[in-house]
Amino acid sequence: MKGNCIIAQSGGSTAVMNASACGIIQEAIEQQAITNVYAAQNGILGILREEIFDLQNESSKAIEGLKTTPAAAFGSCRYKINLENDLAKIINTFEKYKIHFFFYIGGNDSQDSANKINQFAKQKGYPLITMGIPKTIDNDLVHTDHTPGYGSVIKYLATMTMEAGMDTEALYTTDTINIIETMGRNSGWIAAGTALARRNKKDAPHIILFPEQPFREEKFYEKIDCTLKKWGRCVIVVSEGIKNSDGNYLFEQNDKINRDTFGHSQLGGAATYIKKIIEKEIKQKVRYSIPSTIQRNGIHFASLTDSNEAYLLGQTAIKLAIAGINGKMVTLKRISNYPYKCKTDIVDLSLVANRVKSFPQEWITPDGFFVTRNFYQYTRPLIQGEVKPRLKGGLPVFMRFRKEKVKSTTLTL
Amino acid sequence: MKGNCIIAQSGGSTAVMNASACGIIQEAIEQQAITNVYAAQNGILGILREEIFDLQNESSKAIEGLKTTPAAAFGSCRYKINLENDLAKIINTFEKYKIHFFFYIGGNDSQDSANKINQFAKQKGYPLITMGIPKTIDNDLVHTDHTPGYGSVIKYLATMTMEAGMDTEALYTTDTINIIETMGRNSGWIAAGTALARRNKKDAPHIILFPEQPFREEKFYEKIDCTLKKWGRCVIVVSEGIKNSDGNYLFEQNDKINRDTFGHSQLGGAATYIKKIIEKEIKQKVRYSIPSTIQRNGIHFASLTDSNEAYLLGQTAIKLAIAGINGKMVTLKRISNYPYKCKTDIVDLSLVANRVKSFPQEWITPDGFFVTRNFYQYTRPLIQGEVKPRLKGGLPVFMRFRKEKVKSTTLTL
Repeated sequence: MKGNCIIAQSGGSTAVMNASACGIIQEAIEQQAITNVYAAQNGILGILREEIFDLQNESSKAIEGLKTTPAAAFGSCRYKINLENDLAKIINTFEKYKIHFFFYIGGNDSQDSANKINQFAKQKGYPLITMGIPKTIDNDLVHTDHTPGYGSVIKYLATMTMEAGMDTEALYTTDTINIIETMGRNSGWIAAGTALARRNKKDAPHIILFPEQPFREEKFYEKIDCTLKKWGRCVIVVSEGIKNSDGNYLFEQNDKINRDTFGHSQLGGAATYIKKIIEKEIKQKVRYSIPSTIQRNGIHFASLTDSNEAYLLGQTAIKLAIAGINGKMVTLKRISNYPYKCKTDIVDLSLVANRVKSFPQEWITPDGFFVTRNFYQYTRPLIQGEVKPRLKGGLPVFMRFRKEKVKSTTLTL
Repeated sequence: MKGNCIIAQSGGSTAVMNASACGIIQEAIEQQAITNVYAAQNGILGILREEIFDLQNESSKAIEGLKTTPAAAFGSCRYKINLENDLAKIINTFEKYKIHFFFYIGGNDSQDSANKINQFAKQKGYPLITMGIPKTIDNDLVHTDHTPGYGSVIKYLATMTMEAGMDTEALYTTDTINIIETMGRNSGWIAAGTALARRNKKDAPHIILFPEQPFREEKFYEKIDCTLKKWGRCVIVVSEGIKNSDGNYLFEQNDKINRDTFGHSQLGGAATYIKKIIEKEIKQKVRYSIPSTIQRNGIHFASLTDSNEAYLLGQTAIKLAIAGINGKMVTLKRISNYPYKCKTDIVDLSLVANRVKSFPQEWITPDGFFVTRNFYQYTRPLIQGEVKPRLKGGLPVFMRFRKEKVKSTTLTL
C-alpha cells in the first residue's frame, strides 16, 4: 500500500509522548510507501473537524525538538467515538486526504478508538492500516511490560520525594508529616514509583497509599505513629485514587460531608483528606504537595531510557505498518533486568482497548504500606539516564510547530 | 581572636543553604584563627540543647557534597529567642565549647536572633564574633540585592510553569484553566519569578496574583475571560499570601465560610480558593498544582549562579570574621546586569532583623496581573547555570553527616 499517513495524540500528557511522535515522523519521512506525513490537531477531533496539518512544512529541527518537548505537540483530546456517524466522517476524511496509515498515540481509551476506526474501515472496504502506540504515565496498559511516560513520571516524582524528604528531615525538630499526592487514577503504579527515592529505611517515602489497597484508618495511624517514633518524621505518598473498603474514593466521601456555600463539592483530593484525618487523630501539623500536571511533564529531568523507548515504539509502528501489519498496538517486552533489555512486540488493539493493569498485590508489602524488592527490580531500569532539553537563559526551550493546514489543492475532491 | 567556630541553620529550607554552609566550613578549615569547626543541630536549639557536633570527623567528600544537597544538613529551627535565660544559656555553651565565632544562616528572624546573641555577648564581656548569612527563597531581606535560595526557586518554578503550560496547551480543546500556587509568604517575589517562563505572549503564565496587589475579583474574571478569548487557555500563578482589599488572606476568608465536621478550618490555600471562585463564576474546569515544599528543594535543577553566590557569602563571612568584622550580615550588591556582576558587602544585623522587602509596585504592570521588563532584567542573571548533583541509578545522591557529638574531653569544664 502507498499513501499519506496521519499521526494523532490522545489523553493526558506525558514527558515523552512527543518522542513517540518524533519516531513516527522521522521514520515516515524515510519510507517510500508514505507520500505525505500529516498530523491531526487534538487527536481524532482534528480528523473529525478536518484540522489537519502538513509536517512537510516543518523544519527538521522542530521535528527533532519533539524529543525534548513535553506534552502533546499536536494537541490531545479525550473524545470517545460512539456514533457510526463519527466513524463515517473519519473514513471520509481519510479518503479525501488519501490517508492510508493511521498512528494513534494514547492510552487504553485511545486504543479502543483506533480499533473502532480500523474495524469500520475494514467493514467499508477502505484500505487503512492502523497502529496504536502506547502512552500513559499510569502504566496501566495490558500486554506491554510498561508504558512510555511511566519511567519519566516516576523518575521525577522519586526526585521530588527525595528533595521533599530532605526538607522534612531538616525541618525544625521532630514529628513532621509531609504528604505528596500523585496521579495514577485507579492504579498505584505511580505512587509506588516514589519508593525509588528510598535508599535506606530512614529515607522518604515512609508510607505509600495504593488504590489497590483498601484504606484502613487504624492501621494507617499505627504506621504513622511507628514511623514518627523511629525517624521523627513521616513522608506519605498518596495515590489520587485511594479508596475505602467499599471501593469508594476517599475524597468523594469527603465531598458528602462538606459542600461549600456555592453548592460545590469540597475541593482538593486525597492529600487534603489524608491531611485532615491525620490532624484530627495525631494532632500534628501536616504539610502537603500536589504536583498535579507538573509531574507528568517534567522533561527537564525525564528518563532517557523512557524517551528512547517512546521513540523506538513510534519508529517501529511505522516499520511494521509498511510491512503490512495492521490493527495492532506496539508493545515493550522485557528480556532481562541485568543488563536491562527490552524488545518491541505487538498485540491486537482489541486486546488492549478499555482494559486496565492494576498494580500487582504481590508487590505490596504485607502491611499494605510499601513495595517489595521485586518492584525495585522492575522499575530501576526504567529511570536510567536523563533527557537533556536545550537550555536558553537557564530555562528549557520547547518547540512549537507552525501547523500549516494541508492545502486543498493537494487533495482529491 | 582565636577559638572554635559554630555554624547553624535556621528557617525554611532552600536548595542552596547547604552551599553557604560549605563555604563557611571549607574556608574555616583553612583559617589558622579557627581551631575546630562545630555545627549545631536545628539552629540555636542545638546550642541551647548542647546538640553540637564536630565537623573535623566528617569527610571532605561529605563537606563538598553540601553543594549538591538541598535543605539544611544540620537541621533547621523556627525558635525565637525571647528570654534572657536563653541568651545566658547560649553564651555559657559558647564558653564551654570555646566558641568565639558564630555563623547563622537564615532569614530576617534568624538575623534578629543572631543580633540578640551578639549584643548579649558584648554586654557580658564574652568575646564573640557573629556573622549572619542571608538565606530565604522569599527574597524579602532588606539591604541585599537578592537572597541565596531565590534564584533556584524561581528557576525551578519557572520550569514547572513552562511544563505545566505545555500541558495546558496540549490538553484537549479550549478554555483550560490551570493554577499554580507558589510560596513567598507576604511578598510576591516568588510568584513573580514564574514570569521568566514566558518567552512570548502565548506562553504561561498569563496571570500572576501578588500579595502586594489587593485581589479584585471582577478585574480578575475580566482578565481570565480576555486570556481565554485570546489563547483558549489560562495559566494563573497565585502567591500563597494573596489578600483582599481589607488586607485579609483570601483563604482565611474561605475558612470563615467553611469549617469541617471536625471543627478544623477548611484545608488548602490560595489555589483552592481561586479554583472555587473561578468555577463558580466562569464555569470552567480548573486544575491546580501546589508544589509546596518541593519547590524550595529542587537541587536537581537549581541555579548554579545562586549556588555559587550562596557559597561565596559563607566563605566571605569567615574571611570578614577573621578580619575582625562583627555583628554584620554579608550581602550581595549588584554592580551590573550585562554582564552580570555582583560583589559582597555587609550590613548591620540590626538593620536586617525583622524587616521585610516587599515586591516593588513599579514592577507590577498597570493591570496588576503581571511584571514589567525591569523585573526580567533583575531576575534573569539569577537563574543562569545548573547545579549538577551526582546521580546514581538515575536519581540524585545527597550527603548526610555522621554527626558525632563534640567529645567532652576536649571541653573546658
